[in-house]
Amino acid sequence: MARYADMTVEELENELKALDKEYRRFQKLDLTLDMSRGKPCTEQLDISMGMMDVLNSQVDLTCEDGTDCRNYGVLSGIAEVKELLGDMMENHPDNIIIYGNSSLNVMYDTVSRAMLRGVMGSTPWSKLESVKFLCPVPGYDRHFSMTEYFGIEMIPVPMNDEGPDMDMVEDLVANDELIKGIWCVPKYSNPSGTTYSERTVRRFARLKPAAKDFRIFWDNAYGVHHLYDEQQDYIPEILAECKRAGNPDMVYKFASTSKITFPGSGIAALATSQNNLVDIKKQLTHQTIGHDKVNQLRHVRFFGNIHGLMQHMSRHAQILRPKFEAVEDALEKNLAGLDIGTWTKPNGGYFITFYALDGCAKKIISKAKKAGVTMTEAGATWPYHKDPHDSDIRIAPSYPPLEDLKMAAELFSLCVRIVSAEKILSEKKAQGAPKEAAQE
Amino acid sequence: MARYADMTVEELENELKALDKEYRRFQKLDLTLDMSRGKPCTEQLDISMGMMDVLNSQVDLTCEDGTDCRNYGVLSGIAEVKELLGDMMENHPDNIIIYGNSSLNVMYDTVSRAMLRGVMGSTPWSKLESVKFLCPVPGYDRHFSMTEYFGIEMIPVPMNDEGPDMDMVEDLVANDELIKGIWCVPKYSNPSGTTYSERTVRRFARLKPAAKDFRIFWDNAYGVHHLYDEQQDYIPEILAECKRAGNPDMVYKFASTSKITFPGSGIAALATSQNNLVDIKKQLTHQTIGHDKVNQLRHVRFFGNIHGLMQHMSRHAQILRPKFEAVEDALEKNLAGLDIGTWTKPNGGYFITFYALDGCAKKIISKAKKAGVTMTEAGATWPYHKDPHDSDIRIAPSYPPLEDLKMAAELFSLCVRIVSAEKILSEKKAQGAPKEAAQE
Repeated sequence: MARYADMTVEELENELKALDKEYRRFQKLDLTLDMSRGKPCTEQLDISMGMMDVLNSQVDLTCEDGTDCRNYGVLSGIAEVKELLGDMMENHPDNIIIYGNSSLNVMYDTVSRAMLRGVMGSTPWSKLESVKFLCPVPGYDRHFSMTEYFGIEMIPVPMNDEGPDMDMVEDLVANDELIKGIWCVPKYSNPSGTTYSERTVRRFARLKPAAKDFRIFWDNAYGVHHLYDEQQDYIPEILAECKRAGNPDMVYKFASTSKITFPGSGIAALATSQNNLVDIKKQLTHQTIGHDKVNQLRHVRFFGNIHGLMQHMSRHAQILRPKFEAVEDALEKNLAGLDIGTWTKPNGGYFITFYALDGCAKKIISKAKKAGVTMTEAGATWPYHKDPHDSDIRIAPSYPPLEDLKMAAELFSLCVRIVSAEKILSEKKAQGAPKEAAQE
Repeated sequence: MARYADMTVEELENELKALDKEYRRFQKLDLTLDMSRGKPCTEQLDISMGMMDVLNSQVDLTCEDGTDCRNYGVLSGIAEVKELLGDMMENHPDNIIIYGNSSLNVMYDTVSRAMLRGVMGSTPWSKLESVKFLCPVPGYDRHFSMTEYFGIEMIPVPMNDEGPDMDMVEDLVANDELIKGIWCVPKYSNPSGTTYSERTVRRFARLKPAAKDFRIFWDNAYGVHHLYDEQQDYIPEILAECKRAGNPDMVYKFASTSKITFPGSGIAALATSQNNLVDIKKQLTHQTIGHDKVNQLRHVRFFGNIHGLMQHMSRHAQILRPKFEAVEDALEKNLAGLDIGTWTKPNGGYFITFYALDGCAKKIISKAKKAGVTMTEAGATWPYHKDPHDSDIRIAPSYPPLEDLKMAAELFSLCVRIVSAEKILSEKKAQGAPKEAAQE
């Protein structure tokens, strides 16, 4: 197909007429499809139903060290679940605390504790004139809204193919003591699907922050969420890297089973250095007597071990892979060569990011909405919902059934074409010249 | 038996010889019994094992409004569990948020939020020169340690048979704007077992606090935890009372299923006014996408409704009642008439409080420990672990098997007698006179 920018006004007007007709056809279908959130679909939830059978009234709910999981206690989680999640996170069980149902909760607690009590004896962040976090963009909307809730100033850092712009990160953290954290989704990043390069991870471990209480918030949400068996992204383990680089306490690493078993009914974990763990447990002991050990046991008995968990992840991949490919196919088929957007092709995770022409994201999302397809709100992947280019669109292919998704991807591509054509057309008209030129 | 205070030095010395002999006999038994924590015993946990059967892979995990409980969402809890816990708490489901595994966690969040963000728009407590909480004593050690963690100053308020000294509470909150809260366990209080009188509850609802962001932290942990079917304590519902008194927003009410099903693997709830709920949800939405709905469903399907839950509580009572009575019998048999201590006889809850002679609590607990019986640490029921009279001892009869408990109660009584006799003897010797008088 021809680049839209190369088309004449007339050609664009004709294109738009055809596209509008197509759009009206979609509107008549009364679609209600949702590509807005990274929610597992029903088939994905079904593959974890066996977990509902591993515990019953005839089963002993005692864990390996003899603890009755039905009663109070065990602040940091039962040993066997620490081993399982340790294997998943590539961390030693001794470096792990097991929490309740979501890593979001753990991240919230981590920031909240730093605000009220500081980090390993530092001044509580709430007592400082201001606190700043670096926010690689596009990023995870819930990281940003939480950070905003705590009154922390967010500084966007652009992402590239290797992760965040590390020149900028290194420079900023080295020169501003009020920068206390950075949000990272290092593997199959939300929303771009980018995996940090080895070089990026090593540069993270070697940061020289001005603030001693600066921490990397390493949200490895998609650590084992590959789409392909053969084509799996890899990153160096960050705790080990930080230790080697002489920064053993610089990172908090988060993970959960939300997109492995049942979101909200799973378990979460934090891995960090012993010094940080001691600091955290001082607080945790006032907050809870212990998290849900019965659910910890249920997870361990269901998976058996890390091999069982990885086999389970392959089943997720079998369901998700065709969905990602369906979106990519639709984008490729409908948009290739038009030069009106680019998109990512991740090997895992839950998202594809579409980068629209500047100033088009809101209109595209609004247009899709009017035809029954809900996308993540424009700007959501930027701090304060301010995408300066109004360009980034997060596509979440996981939830809709495959046939619906194909339809939604078609409609989305159509909306991209319409909004882009309108933009280019109006630019051409404003310039005036190209129309004349074409008529010659 | 004669009052120890009426005995002569010689009589006391003989008594102590006999008691020491008895104590050595206990020491030889190599006991390891624990009366320190309000933990349900194994038999109590067993009566909830049916809950492990209500959900399995063949069961539909959809709740009444069609929500798939296995997926993300439903911030404030599923409707049917709000109804169940609403019936339990005597609150409208619309006034309830369902949380994860423990009310301690919810209380922590509540204080933490007020510290960082204030209450319904007030100045964040962390920004004030100081914050104070009233702490009825003896009280729940975890309330106090949490409050201390947050750097909140604790002011002890004595408990009497009707609850906290309300003259003092009214006076303090009316005149000090820095007093922002009071911890209450209004029914079968931890640790005295006291239930607030109707008059006390109504006086609470009619408080005129100087601080607009003053809140009553109403931890109704034992609301349905009766020991007897016929003899159940009653308190007016505090939200309704506050509303009637023109203070609709003055109370946060907490409850959980920790001592109903499995501690740590249950559900918790907060009930409060709509204004407070709006304020709380502004925060909650940044902290979680939703708590464990599968576990909510499991609880609802197990109990069916509030009647099922109350029948379940009767089964707990059948197990707990003989234990409370065994302790009371031992105290009565061994200590009545000696005038060396008093104790409470609650109709529910998890604790009996023993008030020893001044200066004796630490020694009694230490002496029991040396013979293998662990009690709650002396002073734990007071802010900063400072019991000014060194008198209050919390007895937790729930956990040990009945026969062990009888033994522990015997030993405890013996330790009370020894330490009290020693105290009285040394006082008599110090005075000198009584010995001479007795010899005449």
